[in-house]
Amino acid sequence: MIAVLKNSATEDQIKGLINWFESTGLRVNESHGEFCTVLGLVGDTTRVDIEMLRGLDIVESVTRISEPFKMANRKFHPEDTVVDCGGVKIGGGHFAIMAGPCSVESREQIIETAKAVKAAGATLLRGGAFKPRTSPYDFQGMKEEGIKLLVEAKKETGLPIVTEIMNPDHLPLFEDVDVIQVGARNMQNFELLKELGKTKKPILLKRGLSATLKELLMSAEYIMSEGNENIILCERGIRTYETYTRNTFDLSAIPMLKELTHLPVVADPSHATGKASLIKPMAMAATAAGAAGLEIEVHPNPSKALSDGAQSLTFDQFTDVAEAVAKVRSIL
Amino acid sequence: MIAVLKNSATEDQIKGLINWFESTGLRVNESHGEFCTVLGLVGDTTRVDIEMLRGLDIVESVTRISEPFKMANRKFHPEDTVVDCGGVKIGGGHFAIMAGPCSVESREQIIETAKAVKAAGATLLRGGAFKPRTSPYDFQGMKEEGIKLLVEAKKETGLPIVTEIMNPDHLPLFEDVDVIQVGARNMQNFELLKELGKTKKPILLKRGLSATLKELLMSAEYIMSEGNENIILCERGIRTYETYTRNTFDLSAIPMLKELTHLPVVADPSHATGKASLIKPMAMAATAAGAAGLEIEVHPNPSKALSDGAQSLTFDQFTDVAEAVAKVRSIL
Amino acid sequence: MIAVLKNSATEDQIKGLINWFESTGLRVNESHGEFCTVLGLVGDTTRVDIEMLRGLDIVESVTRISEPFKMANRKFHPEDTVVDCGGVKIGGGHFAIMAGPCSVESREQIIETAKAVKAAGATLLRGGAFKPRTSPYDFQGMKEEGIKLLVEAKKETGLPIVTEIMNPDHLPLFEDVDVIQVGARNMQNFELLKELGKTKKPILLKRGLSATLKELLMSAEYIMSEGNENIILCERGIRTYETYTRNTFDLSAIPMLKELTHLPVVADPSHATGKASLIKPMAMAATAAGAAGLEIEVHPNPSKALSDGAQSLTFDQFTDVAEAVAKVRSIL
Amino acid sequence: MIAVLKNSATEDQIKGLINWFESTGLRVNESHGEFCTVLGLVGDTTRVDIEMLRGLDIVESVTRISEPFKMANRKFHPEDTVVDCGGVKIGGGHFAIMAGPCSVESREQIIETAKAVKAAGATLLRGGAFKPRTSPYDFQGMKEEGIKLLVEAKKETGLPIVTEIMNPDHLPLFEDVDVIQVGARNMQNFELLKELGKTKKPILLKRGLSATLKELLMSAEYIMSEGNENIILCERGIRTYETYTRNTFDLSAIPMLKELTHLPVVADPSHATGKASLIKPMAMAATAAGAAGLEIEVHPNPSKALSDGAQSLTFDQFTDVAEAVAKVRSIL
Repeated sequence: MIAVLKNSATEDQIKGLINWFESTGLRVNESHGEFCTVLGLVGDTTRVDIEMLRGLDIVESVTRISEPFKMANRKFHPEDTVVDCGGVKIGGGHFAIMAGPCSVESREQIIETAKAVKAAGATLLRGGAFKPRTSPYDFQGMKEEGIKLLVEAKKETGLPIVTEIMNPDHLPLFEDVDVIQVGARNMQNFELLKELGKTKKPILLKRGLSATLKELLMSAEYIMSEGNENIILCERGIRTYETYTRNTFDLSAIPMLKELTHLPVVADPSHATGKASLIKPMAMAATAAGAAGLEIEVHPNPSKALSDGAQSLTFDQFTDVAEAVAKVRSIL
Repeated sequence: MIAVLKNSATEDQIKGLINWFESTGLRVNESHGEFCTVLGLVGDTTRVDIEMLRGLDIVESVTRISEPFKMANRKFHPEDTVVDCGGVKIGGGHFAIMAGPCSVESREQIIETAKAVKAAGATLLRGGAFKPRTSPYDFQGMKEEGIKLLVEAKKETGLPIVTEIMNPDHLPLFEDVDVIQVGARNMQNFELLKELGKTKKPILLKRGLSATLKELLMSAEYIMSEGNENIILCERGIRTYETYTRNTFDLSAIPMLKELTHLPVVADPSHATGKASLIKPMAMAATAAGAAGLEIEVHPNPSKALSDGAQSLTFDQFTDVAEAVAKVRSIL
Repeated sequence: MIAVLKNSATEDQIKGLINWFESTGLRVNESHGEFCTVLGLVGDTTRVDIEMLRGLDIVESVTRISEPFKMANRKFHPEDTVVDCGGVKIGGGHFAIMAGPCSVESREQIIETAKAVKAAGATLLRGGAFKPRTSPYDFQGMKEEGIKLLVEAKKETGLPIVTEIMNPDHLPLFEDVDVIQVGARNMQNFELLKELGKTKKPILLKRGLSATLKELLMSAEYIMSEGNENIILCERGIRTYETYTRNTFDLSAIPMLKELTHLPVVADPSHATGKASLIKPMAMAATAAGAAGLEIEVHPNPSKALSDGAQSLTFDQFTDVAEAVAKVRSIL
Repeated sequence: MIAVLKNSATEDQIKGLINWFESTGLRVNESHGEFCTVLGLVGDTTRVDIEMLRGLDIVESVTRISEPFKMANRKFHPEDTVVDCGGVKIGGGHFAIMAGPCSVESREQIIETAKAVKAAGATLLRGGAFKPRTSPYDFQGMKEEGIKLLVEAKKETGLPIVTEIMNPDHLPLFEDVDVIQVGARNMQNFELLKELGKTKKPILLKRGLSATLKELLMSAEYIMSEGNENIILCERGIRTYETYTRNTFDLSAIPMLKELTHLPVVADPSHATGKASLIKPMAMAATAAGAAGLEIEVHPNPSKALSDGAQSLTFDQFTDVAEAVAKVRSIL
């Protein structure tokens, strides 16, 4: 970390600041220029509150050289993390496809879908039981009943299940869930993250609508700092001014995150684009970019889906996508 | 609501859709063009799931004519809502200044600040007890102890208090809090919103970092639909590519929201700009734009503040801002 | 195009508006609802000024059903356009790699690079002679001299050349240039677009930093409406709040544009990411997403490049990328 | 400027780099830390190409301490610049209102408007003759004829005139124009900026749709570095995801720019909001934020305006706005 001090800083002020840094265990390199004094801080700077430092009268600017995330940082943990999701591995070369409906709607719907996506090559079943919806008047999910139906589908097909949590109080309902998803709108629900950190469950952490990669990694750090290292990051599109697509799919995030962290990174082309016709090319692109897996919405009858119908694939469309993705995997 | 159907829709499909709309209590106007059929839906369309409609095979596009929010909609509630915050009114011409430190740090700090901001003209005391921080390694607030100190400061000065909630389980701790703040990162924490809707407490709902005005109003609708209409909206800056300021202060949101809703709208120039030197002009601008109040960070010694020091005002600076704001109020 | 009129519109006003539409050659379907009157406009609505319509007192909202671009619209021209670039075809299944330095710096540099990229599989040579730089103090390109060196490199290697124009007055200098590039900052320099429309040269039109896909297509329409249909669109990253990458590479734009237009769409992973280490995965991803070609920065010694060094590849790195891209092409 | 070198940099490489900096006239402070070497560069760093530096193998990161703009920088020119616009001063406490139609449409329209806005308190007349429109099919302005009508209106009323240029070749037509406007889409049309720098005309430089404040100032620097210091900056809204307003009016840009530069800063609430009903509160807000002037669209009959009707004011509305703005001015 480098702090540039203003020319107006007195020698006493500078000494005071250096003493304070040293009292927190950091070593300080001092360099005096014509216009400013530069302090280089050496040691564990993740615990330095950069905003507080910037607030000091004598500080002109502060730049981090090392990243503020530590447990998620590839620098300190060079090997890929492999997350075991009910027997299916993700990361470290293991590739997974999580497929299923946006919302669980009925026993028939989820079991039929589970069988179809398994046959097409999916390795996990996804389905929403608790649904975060912008409007209180929209369908909010089947809740506890939805989770039960997912568990039934798991028994029927053997596919581990992925479903979203919205409230730490619901955790007991997730006992038989293999991967707990944190949705984009809850990426900075720190109270939820801390509670998930106390479990050992694999967590699928989706990037917030306007979250930076650094913020995504800091949210992973919240979970990890409580003891749970089973985290899968998910790029699912960010909000921009473009309106043809529902979101803007930031695919560069995949290789960029892979440089920054050892955690596996998957991609969700369904939410990212919001358009069924774009999912095949974007699933292939995400795979080519190095994703460790994909999350894809599939529904027996997309035009009747209670949520997100516009972006769901039919069984046949999904089979086609899974084959195309397998081809891309074959050349990597 | 207007649904444009594709030219490829058969008469049977169109009839089926119309029947379905009518079964939900809507009336349907049909109009046939060369390239498409247009259905105009009349009635309470807030309960129509626009995403599901867009997912139907035969639908080209769907446009809302009436807004999806109903209880927050000025059209159905033309008079300004006035929220009583422990005796201080906001909205309907009543203007309030909420001032205080980003975080409560000590008994001395909060009481000294409460006295100073009251003397300068503030009508509510703000202070963070539970702090949502991007990093798990940053100061997380004094929590329960912080709320107790705020209540002490209220007893000492008579100022009603505003503080942020992060977890519905903490609600019992907020009994003596006059206004419960929902932070930007929790604006779409729907579980939290629903619980707050079951109280009668005034809620200060801050706009999310990349929330549209419609989403902000839908989040208010979540609270209102549970029975709590005491909501104050707050513009606090949105995330853009500009880096000189911490966020981009979307001041047009103030008059725009006032057209759309009857709820009072306040502004937070401290978080919006992140720079102490910009707070005076932007507080004046927000007032001139028609804000019903301001939320401003004040600290006895900003350069030692444990969070957000860079954007906090000293007591003298705050006095200067409050006087300038009063001048703007005098000409409105 | 659908115009929704306010309830307050009088019969006379509505008749007046309908008469005006009909006088411009459109047919009008009228539909009366409880809250509004809906006019469906049938015919060539590309010439209707939507902003003017929205400004009318009696108009509530206006929605385009058909797109405002016509010559670029796939609906009216279903077959892929193939652009012949000095003998190299782009579009309709033809894939091209344009490689070379950001700026032409010397005879040796450009000829050495041309030979190297040709050997590695590039089919066109790119190089900047006129450079749009944010700062007037940065290197502005070798200008006329740079174009001469590109032409020499073309003679030496047979590779057609691509280079950027910034001023219509420079057109005579571009006589031997095979593809004229319009940079992101000039995407809405309409005076330049009109002049390029009067030539028959292939135009590589790069998406502006915050241009919508619709705006990109309207800029293509500017060129086409003057008579030049040899246009290649280029996605090169858009501006968002994310800072790890130079821009946000909107890869969904590739399949989306392919639905909307018959013009070929290529991608520029170098500018989109700004990081050499991300170019290989993103070049593969863009290819998998269906790009008709790639534009990639290559330099004999990237760390000495006079502009954009951080994102340029060495010859060896480029060879590796070209091979990986060829593998992706082999499975499409 | 501070360059942080990688730990892997050899002593010879570091010496080589330092020699190179010194050869360009800079002085270098060297500081060695455990993880990196830090070079502090002292002197005129505006001419250092930061991108090139970042591209060097041995460089980890580069941070500017001083801004890259020099002539526009308030640090080197602390007094406010006052621009004389045909006798009307802007900046240094002088406040101006530029009002008039988006497009000049007829002799009658522009002269009637000029008289009305003058009577209401406007000090300059604005009107578009060359119109940059997204669609080639929209009205492109009256061009040369439009400028002639503006000059007539100036003779009739004495109001200096402001109108937009799109092509440097048109400069001879602007001889009698008092202020030449550069539109948002041309803010980085560097060829145009350079030509305007060779004149002595006041230039109204509008911020690009997604331009940072730094880029706006670098564009001003382009004009100034050619010899023309008569520049007025204009905040006119930036592009974000919000759709209720046409753009997002970044009012914080006004006080922020006033800290960074000595050039006057005005605001355009008409383009920023795109809604007539928002112009009064936002004109007042911009004035309270410290703008040196306002640009406002006024039209005798907004609903018939050939462009931007939705955001134009009637004469009566403008009078009301001008009075409200005068009240705000009276308390500053």
